[in-house]
Parts: sequence; structure tokens; C-alpha cells
Amino acid sequence: MRKVCVAGVGMTKFGRSQKSSIEMFAEAAMEAIVGSSIKPADIQCLYFGNVYGDLEEGQTVMAPYAAREIGLSAGTPSLRFEGACASASVAIRDAFIAVAGGFYDLVLAGGTERELAMGTPLATRAFEMASEAYYEGYAGITFPGVFAMLARLYSKKYGVPLPKLKERMAMVAVKNHKNGAKNPLAQFRNEITVEEVLDGPMIAEPLQLLDCCPFTDGAAAIVITTEEKAKKMVKKPVYIRGVGQGSGAPLYRQKDFTLIESRVAAAKTAYAMAGIEPKDVDVVEIHDCFTIAEIVASECLGLFDFGTASEAVEKGETRIGGRIPINPSGGLKSKGHPIGATGAAQSYEIVKQLRGEFVERGTQVEGAKIGLTDTLGGDSATLVNIIYGIKG
Amino acid sequence: MRKVCVAGVGMTKFGRSQKSSIEMFAEAAMEAIVGSSIKPADIQCLYFGNVYGDLEEGQTVMAPYAAREIGLSAGTPSLRFEGACASASVAIRDAFIAVAGGFYDLVLAGGTERELAMGTPLATRAFEMASEAYYEGYAGITFPGVFAMLARLYSKKYGVPLPKLKERMAMVAVKNHKNGAKNPLAQFRNEITVEEVLDGPMIAEPLQLLDCCPFTDGAAAIVITTEEKAKKMVKKPVYIRGVGQGSGAPLYRQKDFTLIESRVAAAKTAYAMAGIEPKDVDVVEIHDCFTIAEIVASECLGLFDFGTASEAVEKGETRIGGRIPINPSGGLKSKGHPIGATGAAQSYEIVKQLRGEFVERGTQVEGAKIGLTDTLGGDSATLVNIIYGIKG
Repeated sequence: MRKVCVAGVGMTKFGRSQKSSIEMFAEAAMEAIVGSSIKPADIQCLYFGNVYGDLEEGQTVMAPYAAREIGLSAGTPSLRFEGACASASVAIRDAFIAVAGGFYDLVLAGGTERELAMGTPLATRAFEMASEAYYEGYAGITFPGVFAMLARLYSKKYGVPLPKLKERMAMVAVKNHKNGAKNPLAQFRNEITVEEVLDGPMIAEPLQLLDCCPFTDGAAAIVITTEEKAKKMVKKPVYIRGVGQGSGAPLYRQKDFTLIESRVAAAKTAYAMAGIEPKDVDVVEIHDCFTIAEIVASECLGLFDFGTASEAVEKGETRIGGRIPINPSGGLKSKGHPIGATGAAQSYEIVKQLRGEFVERGTQVEGAKIGLTDTLGGDSATLVNIIYGIKG
Repeated sequence: MRKVCVAGVGMTKFGRSQKSSIEMFAEAAMEAIVGSSIKPADIQCLYFGNVYGDLEEGQTVMAPYAAREIGLSAGTPSLRFEGACASASVAIRDAFIAVAGGFYDLVLAGGTERELAMGTPLATRAFEMASEAYYEGYAGITFPGVFAMLARLYSKKYGVPLPKLKERMAMVAVKNHKNGAKNPLAQFRNEITVEEVLDGPMIAEPLQLLDCCPFTDGAAAIVITTEEKAKKMVKKPVYIRGVGQGSGAPLYRQKDFTLIESRVAAAKTAYAMAGIEPKDVDVVEIHDCFTIAEIVASECLGLFDFGTASEAVEKGETRIGGRIPINPSGGLKSKGHPIGATGAAQSYEIVKQLRGEFVERGTQVEGAKIGLTDTLGGDSATLVNIIYGIKG
């Protein structure tokens, strides 16, 4: 396997957009391409993430149109990946495999999604389809319900009283909004308080409105290439040190959802490939679709012992400046969650963190050398972890 | 790049099924696994094609549930590919890249689709989404319309009078039904006549009902591995000699749809990788979603000079026993077209043809050493060609 690097990265403003999914993707892609000092024609393959192009815009088979929109040729393959909210990370991991194995030298990976025009009723129905359809979806389950049950399970299993857990969950939202407020690309740039979270509308007890990430329009993309090429293209290439992907069973077949099996397996694979341990990670972008999701994920990733992550949040260990900063971008909670793009946006953040480019933004994790992305698709169906490093 | 082979292959009966997409896929996958003399746990990654799981069954993120259904573990990655009707061939090509590059040694690729329960109105709307959405779809175009226009364009460009072209198009349907009648897995096993085609209901002038392939439920899968492993697993490993994939622009940006740019580019790549020319191909499975589609495809693939393929059909050159047999399986027209599975079903047919396993069925292409699959997604958006051979 060859060493693989990220050259340029690009990302749109997250929020509500008047652009189509393809137009947003083109904007992010061109930023990544220009930032790589290449031309579109240098790209040998497009790895493209999108989830609901059909329901959002009546557009299936979006990858080739996206490829042509940015100037790729008829002979350039374009692959659409759908792994629910992890789609772009699935695309990035697969792009890594093709470059590491020597099939391609230079490719583009990313994703795009345009959710807000769907409206809440259709979006809620659409997202629910990322639960198992025949037993769970038909029973009326939606993601707020799943993660509300997870919060209750967590509270009971680890003996963290629900009011205390709710307070700590609120602190996750407060932290992520504090970070996101400084991110010019974030959807919500307002700081919030624990009281505001706890006083908010109830969505699925114990989750309140500000425990939940929003619907979002947006896109992100990264250029992936060989170490050799990357060194010529950019001043600070960032290495992809390890990748891992897991496949979760439907929830009704899982024993304990606080130990998310696809994540534990994916992280193990990624750490082994990178030759590191969780303690070596300096900065993390975690899939905080709900506040409890960030807490549980940080444990499954080995960043905290099981049952201890909510206390760590209260102690400030996951803030910028804390022991292991989580979601300096603002996370899905504040930055936004355009599901097909989210994994690429996480990679965008980590690559720029490792390049030290967020000093001016005020959210630089100082001295960060190794970063980790964690992207969840469905309620645990597809899980991708990617480890980036400033050294190969 | 390492040499890559297909070991076992599997396919369900095509037609109407009471099984879910995942259950159908599991049936095909287990046949491929058993035929490879392996256990599910030996599979390192699943490459899975599906197009409309959300609209058909309310199921997004289907790949991991399919993976777990056949006994793969939480640590086994599963990737869903959507390239409209070419989805399974996109999956197979990507699986080839991972094995050729040395990332994996043994993987499973295939696809599944469950269309018939949608009903014609929703299915028609769904399929239309594989046209470009903002300019073409909104203008009311559907695939029968696109291919009807292609037939008229072909007639005019090459000076084949429309009544003559219609007769020859009907001969494509007659040939494919004759082949499909012998295929126990085909959806339609009735032979038809040219008169029946020409007397049928008009769908989009000049395409009549029997010029069009059906909606279908079905699944197919193949095990892809290294040459070394395949030789130990099966008596007759079949090599993947070359792969090519193209990305077509929206139709309104293309100059001449009789020269399908994504197909010309994909075929060129595949032939070059295989180190062969079109004349070296012994048997072909072509994407005959409409009868005119088979004619045009066979020219873009270099099997006939441009403008001559309809005459070749009349002369019987594409029959079994003819110069270059096309669609001995019955093709999409007779075998059926479960869109997410079609590419894998084409590969199933070619692998078995090269193994010489269709003598009893009565559709063996004698002495076939090199076979080609051709799978079209959308009206030309994604095009995949795969070349198989009995030698590496």
C-alpha cells in the first residue's frame, strides 16, 4: 500500500442554500481543486456521497452529473455512495483504497445534500428510512426516539441520574455552539446556555430541541493523492494514516446499544492501520447528531472509559484546550448536518486543524498532529473512522 | 495490480418476488458463497448495488443490513453504490479495484431491486429521476421517450427507414425472447414474433410494448478474489481482464446521442486494460433496456461499424451461433431488469458462459473465451464495461 495524502479541501457555507446539490458540490470541489494547484482534468475518479437526491430534487444517478459540472470528462468514472449520514466518509475511505492500492494517483471525494427544501414532514419520513425498515421503521421509530432510548439506557447502565445526564448533554450542545459560533461556515453561530437547552421544547424525552442537530444544505470535498504528488501540490499535505468501516445490525438484533458494535469495530481497524492508540489522538470530529451521541461515541472510540464521558464533558475535557477537543468545528449540532456531505466536512475540519489554519478563527487545537473523524450512518448501520496525521 | 478472478456466482429467479430486497440478495449471495467453497466470514467487504430502496421499501442504508443478513460481522465494511441501472456493475468494478490493488483478497459484489410492488405510476416517476432532474425531468421526459427519440435520430442519421428499423428492432426482441425462453431464471420465457412486436401497444413512437424491458424483482451476486485464491476455490476461475467506467453529461449537453460518450469512453478503457480489441470478444451481455438500445450499444462497443448493427441483427449475426452472440441470457428484455441487480446478472451470465455451463440450457456460446458486459445507468450517465476471460 502506498502512503496517501489529502491536498486541497473545500466546503460551502452550511445552512439554507438556493443552489442545487450539484451546484453546492461544484463550489466545494472547485475550492479543493484550486487549493490543490491542479486542474479538474487531473482528477481520475470522483467518489461522491449523497443520500436523498431522489426525494430532495428528483435526481438519482447524481455523481456523473456532478463530475461533468466541474469539468471532468466522459471517461472519468464517478461513483455515488450512500451510507446514510456517513455517505461522504464511505466515499473518502473508498477513494483512499484506490489510491493506496495504486489504481489511481489523484481523485476527488466528498458529498452534498439539500435537505431544507424537503420540509420537516418529508425530511422526517426520509431520515426514518435509515432505520431498519421492516420491523423498526414500521413500528414508528425515528432517530430522536432511538437516541432518546439510548440516553435512558446510558443513564441506567452507568448509574448517571437522568437529570444529571441531561445537564451534561446540554453541556455538549453549549460547547459545540461555542465552537460553531466562531466558524463562519456554520449554520448556527449563536452561543447557547445549559438553561436554554433544558428549557427548550421536548422532542423525545429526554432529548430537547437543542440536543438535536438541524436539517442543513451544504457540500464538502477533498482531493486525495499519493504522498509523492501531494508534496509537490501543497505546502502541508496531511496523511490518511488509517481507515475503518463497520456494518451494524438492525437495532432489534443488537444487545447493548451503548456499545455501538459498528463503531467499536471500525475504530479498532483504523487505529491498527494507523499504528496508534486512542490516547495519541489530538483532535476529533464526532458524529453528534444528538448530544448523547457524542458522549457515547467518545467512549466507543476509546477516548474515555465506558460510563465516564459525560463527566468528562462537565470537567471541560472535550473543550478546545481540554484533554481531547471534540468538534472544534461546532459539530453537526452547530455547524449543521447536510447528511451526504457531513463526513467530508469533518475531514475538511481535521485537515485544516492539522495544518494549523484555525488560529485566526479562534478554534485552533494547538499542536494537533493526529486527528480522527467519526461518521455514523443510520442508527449504527454504517460507521466510518478516518485517522489523519501530519506525518505518514 | 494483481490478477483478479470471479469464483462463485449466484442469481435469483427474476420476475415478481414476495421477498424483500435483502432477502433476495441473501439468496443470490449464498449461492455465490457456496459455489466458491467459502464461508460468509471469509468475505472481507461487501460491494452492494441498489437504486430505489427508499421508494420501494422505505429502506435507505441497505448494504450493512444485507451484509449482516448473510452473516458478515460488524467489522466487515459494506458499501452501497447507486449508478441507476448500472449500480451492480459499478459495485463489481470497485470491488475489482480493491482486490487488484491488494487491499482485499476476497470480497462479495452484487445488487438487488424490488420494483414490482411500487406499481407503474411510482415506478415510472422513480425511473424518470435517472434523467437529469432540473431541465429534462421537469420537461416531462421519461426513458421510453428518450429511446424513442434515439431510434428516430438513428433512422435519420444512418438512412435506415423507420419501418425497416422498427422491423429490425423487433428482431432484437424476438432474439432475446428466444434466448430467454431457455433461461429458467428469466422473467418472460415466451417466444414472440416480429408481428407481435409490431402489432403491440404503442409506448412512445416508434417504441412499442415489446421493444421495452419490464419492471422486475431480483438479485445477483459474485465472489471476487485473487487469482491465487480462486484457483484453490473453484475448478474454473474466470478472470476480470479489464474494466471501464464513463460519466455521461445530461442529454441537453450532448451533441449526438447515437455516439454515447460514456460508453465509448468506458469501452476504450476496458479494452485497453484487457489488451484486446472488440473482434476478440466471443459473447456479450448488453444493456437492452429498449431494442434500439442494444443496436446502438453494439456499435458504441465497436462490435459493428456505426450504422450497420440493425442490418447485422437481421442477418442473425447477434444470435447464438452468429458472429457475435448478444444477450444469450435473454437480456433485460426477456430475462428482466431489476435495476440494482442487472449488472451482476450480466456478470453471472458471462462467467457461466465462459465456464461452459449452459450446454444443457441450450444457450451455450460454444468455445467462448472472452466475454463482455455492458451496463447503462440513466440515459447515459453511468456506463460500465467489464471484460471477462478464461485466461488472465
